[in-house]
Amino acid sequence: MRIDGGVALLERRLDELYAIGAEPEGGGTYRPLYGAAWAAAGERVERWMKDAGLKTHRDAVGNVWGRAAGNGKSIVTGSHIDTVRHGGRLDGALGIVAGLTAVAALLKEKGNPRRPLEVVAICEEEGSRFATNFWGSRAITGAIDTVDADIAAAMAERGLDPAKIAIAARDDIDTFIELHIEQGAVLDASRQPLAVVSAIVGTAHLELTVTGRPDHAGTTPMELRKDALAGAAAMLQAIESIARSLGRPAVATVGRLRVEPDQVNVVPGKVVFTVDLRHSDLGAGRALEERIRSLCSTISQERRLGLAIRTLQERPPVAMHPDVRALLARAAKECGMQATELVSGAGHDAQILAARYRVGMLFVPSIGGRSHCPEEATAPEHLELGTRVLARALELMAY
Amino acid sequence: MRIDGGVALLERRLDELYAIGAEPEGGGTYRPLYGAAWAAAGERVERWMKDAGLKTHRDAVGNVWGRAAGNGKSIVTGSHIDTVRHGGRLDGALGIVAGLTAVAALLKEKGNPRRPLEVVAICEEEGSRFATNFWGSRAITGAIDTVDADIAAAMAERGLDPAKIAIAARDDIDTFIELHIEQGAVLDASRQPLAVVSAIVGTAHLELTVTGRPDHAGTTPMELRKDALAGAAAMLQAIESIARSLGRPAVATVGRLRVEPDQVNVVPGKVVFTVDLRHSDLGAGRALEERIRSLCSTISQERRLGLAIRTLQERPPVAMHPDVRALLARAAKECGMQATELVSGAGHDAQILAARYRVGMLFVPSIGGRSHCPEEATAPEHLELGTRVLARALELMAY
Repeated sequence: MRIDGGVALLERRLDELYAIGAEPEGGGTYRPLYGAAWAAAGERVERWMKDAGLKTHRDAVGNVWGRAAGNGKSIVTGSHIDTVRHGGRLDGALGIVAGLTAVAALLKEKGNPRRPLEVVAICEEEGSRFATNFWGSRAITGAIDTVDADIAAAMAERGLDPAKIAIAARDDIDTFIELHIEQGAVLDASRQPLAVVSAIVGTAHLELTVTGRPDHAGTTPMELRKDALAGAAAMLQAIESIARSLGRPAVATVGRLRVEPDQVNVVPGKVVFTVDLRHSDLGAGRALEERIRSLCSTISQERRLGLAIRTLQERPPVAMHPDVRALLARAAKECGMQATELVSGAGHDAQILAARYRVGMLFVPSIGGRSHCPEEATAPEHLELGTRVLARALELMAY
Repeated sequence: MRIDGGVALLERRLDELYAIGAEPEGGGTYRPLYGAAWAAAGERVERWMKDAGLKTHRDAVGNVWGRAAGNGKSIVTGSHIDTVRHGGRLDGALGIVAGLTAVAALLKEKGNPRRPLEVVAICEEEGSRFATNFWGSRAITGAIDTVDADIAAAMAERGLDPAKIAIAARDDIDTFIELHIEQGAVLDASRQPLAVVSAIVGTAHLELTVTGRPDHAGTTPMELRKDALAGAAAMLQAIESIARSLGRPAVATVGRLRVEPDQVNVVPGKVVFTVDLRHSDLGAGRALEERIRSLCSTISQERRLGLAIRTLQERPPVAMHPDVRALLARAAKECGMQATELVSGAGHDAQILAARYRVGMLFVPSIGGRSHCPEEATAPEHLELGTRVLARALELMAY
């Protein structure tokens, strides 16, 4: 499969999409679900689909589909079209544009596919406008039960009827393959050009509230204090240490932390912080959480502090389908390379679609691990390689 | 010196002052400098001074003085009349009311003093309305050079002329003695009823800025992170550990801490936190600061983090005058008790007045160490003891 001419086109199209929603201050782009930039980007993609000879369709939730007819269930590729604030040029956009490039090249060189071959621009994955993460892929799997009033209003503005959202559900998809940037530094640091994703990590978000006693910073000797922040610091050290000792793919992150009363000369009486825990293995992830809960509890008791822990969110890990993993590895090999396998630490549409279809993912490197920022970038030769492997995989399945 | 009837009066007067500025929500009282409650409290105290036979005078900055004539330089007692928000019944108020009680008893029992004997309600110490800490005592020592526009406007509202502030300076004071609550738990925890203050700690406020790199919490393995908050947590642990190992009176408090970008799923890229350091010995305090700076610097280097440290405020420790300490100890002994000595971890007007006059302080216990809150309290027998020792000390000096 030659896509040489297609790669220049791919770069141009990535530039075009990046310009739609460009942020006037702070750089990057922002295409929130059902916003003006989101709608313009969807229209642009639909035009490209038509140019490639695909039959297009906007479904009830706003996903844009382009289809080449065939027999049986569909082989689908694509990614999401929405972005975070100050988002980069590749997150989501690459999977759509590379999918289009691959399918266009296949249609041109190989003619009509044996099976239906589709490209999809999924309407939302980031949750950056509403608390709707995976809105598009959840609609495709029929997993949306209720629509909040503010989302319903935003849908109506785009001519979409929230009452009809169930119509977006698909039961005629066989396999979904997504090309995405890694959004981490593993491939870049190890100088590997491509990875087949083995699994998407499970995530738990915990909120810990540490309660001590606010005291005068000058008049209270160290040994008479119940310092909530000193206790939280000990917990943070323990959390980091546990995750480090487990090694990849375990990660634990304290991203938010708030101190009360937050005054220079008052011993902190209360600290609230979050822990983001991820692991690709359900049991290992739960064990990690259990160790963290247990150690934080011990620290709070030793320091005579109160501790309350609540779960904000919990999502189990999702394995990529073994047949699709093998097929992607074969496609990579046929493109001249031995692909490494990698666990995805970030969430992706594929993990939602895995509930109903066979799914697989390919990662290309993020330079310096940067993502969700204007600096998000991948070397041109890696964009090309990813697109070639994607095209070969689609060919193996659809032709 | 009998002040038995006086103690009931003292409690009533503390209640009266506490009611002036009572906060409608959250409890406690609030008498900000030059506010309505502040003015009403000053007028009440001036009336009590007149009732005791003292000649009153409001100086150019708003300090209220009550004087019994005598020869030579004055012996002065008193404290500040302003309060923090939701302030308690005793902080500042006790020193004024107990001083009045003691002086009234002396005048009644012993007649006119040999030396001038004065009670002062100092206009401001807390800095709770403007950034003016020690405003009243700085005016008395002639240490105020400039008056900000907002403070000048507030003075004008009370009929005070900011241009005349220098007139408030006094060079005819020999000794200032202040009775105050400890505002810490040392006396209460060790069941001691009274302490003579040996020194007021020096204070340094540092602000540390730790710079790492914001990364995706899912895609960035632990060993590839530059987590500013994990680094800050290690620094907090080190700071606490150093202060603990030095023991009393060294204290180090991280009271404020801010995380950026403060998102659940982003590795913190930046943390800014403050350290409040106190010690009664200048050299030991500086050594404490040096050790903290050095250890935080080592931690930042080990973790490849940036670190910037700036000094927000620095105030050297102030020793109480040895003659006054000895005299207060003698007065306590003559009242039937062996007074312990204590370092004050909080700032007081005495530390400013020490620049020009001989100063000394007495502490009575704070129940549970509580202060700057509605729960601030001292047992009646300790209020009585403190007032008796204060009266005896004033008698020893002024008669």
